[in-house]
Amino acid sequence: MEPLPLVCSRYHAAVELIGRRWNGAILRALLDGPARYAQLREAIPQISDRMLSERLRELETEGLLTRHVAADAPVRVEYQLTGKGRDLEKAIMAIADWATRYVPAPALRDSA
Amino acid sequence: MEPLPLVCSRYHAAVELIGRRWNGAILRALLDGPARYAQLREAIPQISDRMLSERLRELETEGLLTRHVAADAPVRVEYQLTGKGRDLEKAIMAIADWATRYVPAPALRDSA
Repeated sequence: MEPLPLVCSRYHAAVELIGRRWNGAILRALLDGPARYAQLREAIPQISDRMLSERLRELETEGLLTRHVAADAPVRVEYQLTGKGRDLEKAIMAIADWATRYVPAPALRDSA
Repeated sequence: MEPLPLVCSRYHAAVELIGRRWNGAILRALLDGPARYAQLREAIPQISDRMLSERLRELETEGLLTRHVAADAPVRVEYQLTGKGRDLEKAIMAIADWATRYVPAPALRDSA
């Protein structure tokens, strides 16, 4: 039995970071440009405030996005992908293409 | 404040399926060709038997791989990506490219 090559631990870390619950959705939303917290909330309706805050902090720690606070009244907080985050576009769009081809649309799923 | 487009629920399901713990590693290993259970175990050293069996079942249910049992002695069980699974290659390789660029190599991480 031939041994397979070891799966690369760097790829493994990357795929699980992108795929961790909600992260993929947040990254997809921010590919369209910088967004405020409330906009992200609306783009991903099922996410809770606690999860969105936690994931945004994680993605900031990982260097995928930055958080800007504008001294307006009320204070305006905006999130923006870094270069490292934007460079996930090819991977994210490839997943989106695959999903369009293979994941049933919700309407079809609901009527099944 | 402009509303963002809703994040596509089909993309969201896909990214979390690929990124669910161990799934990305198993899919990567099977892109190199069909593999036996023990070969997958060796390609992903940290995975437990329980998790590998559970994830293989999940990926089979999702239609990403098939399980073949050859009536040899001892019985030989082999796993192989379906067309749907193989079509993830572009996405998986884009994540691997990104990881090569942005995720530190383990040796560097250990010495940090």
